[in-house]
Amino acid sequence: MAIASLNQLRPLRLFLTGLRRRWLEWRMGISIDPSASISLSSRFIGGQPGGISVGADTLVAFKTLLDARDLATGTVRPIRIGQRCFIGGGSMIMPGVTLADEVIVAAGAVVFHDVPARSIVAGNPARVVRSDIKVGRFGRLDGANENTRRMYKL
Amino acid sequence: MAIASLNQLRPLRLFLTGLRRRWLEWRMGISIDPSASISLSSRFIGGQPGGISVGADTLVAFKTLLDARDLATGTVRPIRIGQRCFIGGGSMIMPGVTLADEVIVAAGAVVFHDVPARSIVAGNPARVVRSDIKVGRFGRLDGANENTRRMYKL
Amino acid sequence: MAIASLNQLRPLRLFLTGLRRRWLEWRMGISIDPSASISLSSRFIGGQPGGISVGADTLVAFKTLLDARDLATGTVRPIRIGQRCFIGGGSMIMPGVTLADEVIVAAGAVVFHDVPARSIVAGNPARVVRSDIKVGRFGRLDGANENTRRMYKL
Repeated sequence: MAIASLNQLRPLRLFLTGLRRRWLEWRMGISIDPSASISLSSRFIGGQPGGISVGADTLVAFKTLLDARDLATGTVRPIRIGQRCFIGGGSMIMPGVTLADEVIVAAGAVVFHDVPARSIVAGNPARVVRSDIKVGRFGRLDGANENTRRMYKL
Repeated sequence: MAIASLNQLRPLRLFLTGLRRRWLEWRMGISIDPSASISLSSRFIGGQPGGISVGADTLVAFKTLLDARDLATGTVRPIRIGQRCFIGGGSMIMPGVTLADEVIVAAGAVVFHDVPARSIVAGNPARVVRSDIKVGRFGRLDGANENTRRMYKL
Repeated sequence: MAIASLNQLRPLRLFLTGLRRRWLEWRMGISIDPSASISLSSRFIGGQPGGISVGADTLVAFKTLLDARDLATGTVRPIRIGQRCFIGGGSMIMPGVTLADEVIVAAGAVVFHDVPARSIVAGNPARVVRSDIKVGRFGRLDGANENTRRMYKL
């Protein structure tokens, strides 16, 4: 199976992700918890040191964009991502947005406003579609089994 | 004209698309009808064999994403695309979604729910914006002339 | 700082952008004002000569798509972008859309309909979220200071 062969690349991927995390921190002042999992195709634009922070056990999926530069005010408005969040593929997080802990951002969502803890947001503009969820590591919904870990190769 | 010169690449593109279709089928268990037209920049993530199927005379445009892996349940929920559909550029099809025959997905749409036959869906989240349409091959609306075929180089 | 080192690449970027603008005009019949700023990762599909035009002092950000080909009618419906507009990252402009002068398109927006002057549109489908704005060059909101220029390296 292709999944098995991709898993053989896991050590390389983890090495590259760790390298990138250190580079983002050192050169861009973007702080990403070492326990977070960051897709190599995600894009972080902090604008200035401290522009973006990502909490523990959070997963940022492929083709996501986090951009802290605000054209309207000509300033950087920091983006804060909590712990145990899941930022779905292709989604965008706008300047000044704070995601509390245990937030799931659906694939393709464009988030303009803060999101309270234990919520799922979806759509463009993103709206809360579910509240009081219970999640584990990487924003896995309670009841999601080990398959999720394997599917995302975490 | 540029369009003319791009058309000179058509045999190469058809060859690469056919190669990719076979690879997706053999390695990923994704079934794509040979009469379907699949952009090379579309992305199919089946998760497991049988995770995605695409019907005859359907067009999947550039930068689309079909992802059958469901984080919430930790399982794969198959994606089914019918015949004579048009999946617009940059759109996303979520796990478990079935598109019936002759469905048009507008560019940039994010589809979370099943779509009934002969409908147009648009937006994020995608909603039905038109029903009872009549389409031909590749989801071309009735009345669209040969230009469409030429524009998309089919 | 990384921003400083990126700015050292500015002459190269301006040279490539100018080259691309000329190529788009000569080969594709797409007219872009020389004072406009066009991201190298933006994508212009004119369909035929005259399919797209972009006005003076307008900024088209990264990963945007402007596609003037209309599947429904099988024809090209030209896209017109006015002056002093800002087309946000990851947004899409659909066939037949005219943006008047001084329009801001939020990141990730998908624009299906014409937008009146001095408006901000956001969402998918895009809707007017603010009117009667005052902007300067590149759609900078009145009050945005020089930082914006620096952030976008204009």
